[in-house]
Amino acid sequence: MKIISDSTEITPAIGKVTSHDVAKAAGVSQATVSRVLRNDLKVTQATRERVQQALVDLRYEPHAMARAFRSQRAGSIGVVVARLSYPLYATMLEAIGAKLSSLGHRMMVWDAEYGGDLPASKALRQGLVDGVILLAVTATSDFLKDTSSASAPVVLLNRTMDEYPSDQVGSDNVEGGRMVAQYFIRHGRKHSALIGGLQRATPIRDREMGFRQALEQAGHALQSDNYRRSESFTYQSGRESARDLLLTNPTLDAIFCVNDMLALGAIDGIRSMGFQVPQDVWVVGYDDIELSSWDSYDLTTVRQPLQEMVNEAVDLLLAKIAHPGKTQVLLKLSNELVVRSSSDGRAF
Amino acid sequence: MKIISDSTEITPAIGKVTSHDVAKAAGVSQATVSRVLRNDLKVTQATRERVQQALVDLRYEPHAMARAFRSQRAGSIGVVVARLSYPLYATMLEAIGAKLSSLGHRMMVWDAEYGGDLPASKALRQGLVDGVILLAVTATSDFLKDTSSASAPVVLLNRTMDEYPSDQVGSDNVEGGRMVAQYFIRHGRKHSALIGGLQRATPIRDREMGFRQALEQAGHALQSDNYRRSESFTYQSGRESARDLLLTNPTLDAIFCVNDMLALGAIDGIRSMGFQVPQDVWVVGYDDIELSSWDSYDLTTVRQPLQEMVNEAVDLLLAKIAHPGKTQVLLKLSNELVVRSSSDGRAF
Repeated sequence: MKIISDSTEITPAIGKVTSHDVAKAAGVSQATVSRVLRNDLKVTQATRERVQQALVDLRYEPHAMARAFRSQRAGSIGVVVARLSYPLYATMLEAIGAKLSSLGHRMMVWDAEYGGDLPASKALRQGLVDGVILLAVTATSDFLKDTSSASAPVVLLNRTMDEYPSDQVGSDNVEGGRMVAQYFIRHGRKHSALIGGLQRATPIRDREMGFRQALEQAGHALQSDNYRRSESFTYQSGRESARDLLLTNPTLDAIFCVNDMLALGAIDGIRSMGFQVPQDVWVVGYDDIELSSWDSYDLTTVRQPLQEMVNEAVDLLLAKIAHPGKTQVLLKLSNELVVRSSSDGRAF
Repeated sequence: MKIISDSTEITPAIGKVTSHDVAKAAGVSQATVSRVLRNDLKVTQATRERVQQALVDLRYEPHAMARAFRSQRAGSIGVVVARLSYPLYATMLEAIGAKLSSLGHRMMVWDAEYGGDLPASKALRQGLVDGVILLAVTATSDFLKDTSSASAPVVLLNRTMDEYPSDQVGSDNVEGGRMVAQYFIRHGRKHSALIGGLQRATPIRDREMGFRQALEQAGHALQSDNYRRSESFTYQSGRESARDLLLTNPTLDAIFCVNDMLALGAIDGIRSMGFQVPQDVWVVGYDDIELSSWDSYDLTTVRQPLQEMVNEAVDLLLAKIAHPGKTQVLLKLSNELVVRSSSDGRAF
């Protein structure tokens, strides 16, 4: 420490001290100063103390130090996912992993369904992850209650929540639902049904809303006995709902399901009653999960721009980590209708 | 520290010192000693030093200390998964999450495909997780190279590796492959084909080996042009392989696929050429993923006892965390054939 006690002769104005000045004062290389700032263990205790003394003596500018310390990153980004096994989320997780990996970051994942919210929030506070993406996490999440600062490095993906101050990336699900209704009407479908789901999931609520609004505007408001609410988003639930709808109303000619799992079940439910898809009933889903394109289903569905959503979410998160004070960004990307043979393959 | 310098008068035999002795010597409560051992930050610096000095003076037994330190648990268990989006693994992850959650632990997940191996290994060393389950991770894993101590709290699940010293939980895939071959032969299938996969995945290698061995023993050795190796385990790859097999050999009457994704693709590939399943060709898969039971496929397949495997893996891991010195356990559970209509629904 004494070695550099005479370094005060170069005392520059606060805020103008560079790591070059510190290195010179401590009699080490600039690289060594960086290492000390990064807490690199390869630096000997003696050298570390010499550099730390120089930092103090030179009144090394706190903001720069803070920035340097911030660069002591975990290198990992956390993702809290609503449910690991839902195919759409698994696909998005892989896309997030690939994107992060290409940028030199690692991904760490928690399942909200099995208590992942609070460990993720703790990991963020302790610096084990540099930021967190909340994938399809709903408003009831403990993470949101626990981490509600506008400067927290958090991004909501596939969910939007007006009251929450983080950046949010979603897609226009109202428009998506509307597209399906307009498609049905344009092609002469007169007896539409809707298999919906949990209303606390904002994309689901929005899809139903858009679908109902457009039907109503066209003078074909959805009849209450042509609606079923699924509590589980599963194939089985879609299958049973479709059978139940057809038992109640055998003249149905189109069913919109708020996600693809329900729609795949609906197709098999319709077939199990001796009806044909699309000759008797059209089926349209939402999400375009991989198996929707398989021969046995070939499902018409609404596709969210998943890769673009993932890219935006990761970019926003990394920007937020670098600049905690930046203003909130809310992104709502457009969806597209992917027409396949479950609706007769007719063009949009 | 000086306060207890006279405590040497009670020096008990090594290994017999209790936290009561330490508390007495340090002039604090037993609870305070526990807190210091747990690194609880609520203890003042002065008290901490006094207790630490007493621990040293009394030669507090290292094993007991180690045990106490070990009880300072992260509360989280890490899982490194070979590929997040493969449905079988996603299902197993959920089962692990549920089981851990029921026991008061949290799950943290890394995807090996996107560099999860080393962060998981680091997290284990740093105590961020108390133990790690390697789910379907292959011998090329950096984690295995990095964490090869016999006392490390690590369990291999759905993979076995003779040379690796950890506990391992798998199922008898050789027997599973053999069951399928015997089922084909018993029901008069004379022209069998095999769609296989990557040989570095031990379950895949074993399934193929069992299938080939049983065919050979029955005098119906698999012909080389009735074999295709898929590199990707995907629906598309199964579909193309089946089409290719039938183009080469239209008299084929049964195809065994080493996993269900390949088998679902094979069914659609066979149908796309105007053949029927099972009237013309039987198809059998492996894993019994959820969609294999869906109406449009209704796939006969070999089922591993997933829930039992998960329960065993979690129990072994928690036992290993409590007793690092315990001897290695290698578990190989039995599989069963689930007969559905892709093989004509005939009983085993």
